[in-house]
Amino acid sequence: MNVILLETAEASSREVRLDGARAAHLLNVLKVKRGNEVRVGILDGPRGIGTVQSIGAGTVELVCAFEAAAPPRPPVDLLLALPRPKVLRRLWAQVAALGVGQIILTNAARVERNYFDSHVVTPECYRPLLIEGLQQARDTRMPAVSLHRQFRVLVEDQLDGLFADGLRLVASPMPSNPQDNIMQRTPDQRLLLAIGPEGGWNDFETSLLAAHGFRSISMGPRTLRTDTACIALLALAHDWLRPRGTP
Amino acid sequence: MNVILLETAEASSREVRLDGARAAHLLNVLKVKRGNEVRVGILDGPRGIGTVQSIGAGTVELVCAFEAAAPPRPPVDLLLALPRPKVLRRLWAQVAALGVGQIILTNAARVERNYFDSHVVTPECYRPLLIEGLQQARDTRMPAVSLHRQFRVLVEDQLDGLFADGLRLVASPMPSNPQDNIMQRTPDQRLLLAIGPEGGWNDFETSLLAAHGFRSISMGPRTLRTDTACIALLALAHDWLRPRGTP
Repeated sequence: MNVILLETAEASSREVRLDGARAAHLLNVLKVKRGNEVRVGILDGPRGIGTVQSIGAGTVELVCAFEAAAPPRPPVDLLLALPRPKVLRRLWAQVAALGVGQIILTNAARVERNYFDSHVVTPECYRPLLIEGLQQARDTRMPAVSLHRQFRVLVEDQLDGLFADGLRLVASPMPSNPQDNIMQRTPDQRLLLAIGPEGGWNDFETSLLAAHGFRSISMGPRTLRTDTACIALLALAHDWLRPRGTP
Repeated sequence: MNVILLETAEASSREVRLDGARAAHLLNVLKVKRGNEVRVGILDGPRGIGTVQSIGAGTVELVCAFEAAAPPRPPVDLLLALPRPKVLRRLWAQVAALGVGQIILTNAARVERNYFDSHVVTPECYRPLLIEGLQQARDTRMPAVSLHRQFRVLVEDQLDGLFADGLRLVASPMPSNPQDNIMQRTPDQRLLLAIGPEGGWNDFETSLLAAHGFRSISMGPRTLRTDTACIALLALAHDWLRPRGTP
């Protein structure tokens, strides 16, 4: 936990009283004392510094000072064929830590229907995991999550609303040079990365994505598991988008 | 399983009889018939094609034809502060799939000593997981694994033997431009990526690495968990090393 994230309602005043896991982290891991400063942030709001005002039994009171503006939303979005629940559970925190603006989960021919019934696609499950990833990466921007049971309806009717005016890329076993695509991107455009199910998109899905502006990128000759591919591609996308000569 | 890997002893003749998990995969997932061709490979040897000769009760006999040479060893090595056993268990297959020449596991001040007693650092545990990753990525090159309980002895006395004449990089929260380092690399040099424990290397460790040729690279302002950082950095390293204009 590299930043303590607060819900908007908790941060309505500068004085914030924490209990539960966040207070336990401050007391048992960071071992804070009165007067210590800790990194704080408001979910979808600015980061700041909290000064420990008082310590009770399992509680910590902070006085917080926040920056003027929230950090920018990460410039990369994911379109992900719904992975197995066990895999998705492990991915939530990791993709939030790497930085993602929104996560669009979709059905596909090779997605098993019962994955949609899993607890792991409910906000009760994924919201705490996304927050865990944000707290790891010192971000405050909660990724938007949407779940789509009809791939065709999503791509034909809904995707322009979710992702307008950006560069659409689909991970593909076909050879191509990713940098060629990226370089044609204008600096204010977002990037949408589509990652298929284990076994890949079928021909219909591949054609529909191509017809709706998705260009193929290759990650080289190695076939990766969905979860490995997600992390690898997000890391690559952020690296491609990073202005050269800056950290 | 995108390739069926054979032990050297199994591939002593062109005719190979499989049972167990590999036969079950051919029969139940790929649903092979007599005459079908499947991808095969010899561990640390060449890839090839196996033609299904006959099918028994839970067994498959293949006649194999192999390429002349083994694929090249992946040009990236990892120096990894020993992660928690649960994390390491998940990493073995993923790093093998991404491609790694050797995995050097080391103690560090922030590594808990009992991690070294875990089953997960024994070949009985990690060898099948590495093979799983290779079979995912269609590679045959088994990463070399070594385990070092003394960080200083490793860096001062052993590392030149394990990794000579390559570019050494250490993931760091300090800002720097990774591409600046990579571009100075000569094409036949290997890359060694050092990734610290949760909480980071301490000052002594950071200084010792710097004194032994490790240059800092930054992955940007986001702090990542060890397992996420491993996958992300390996993906970036392979991307940096890929000749531009080729897949």
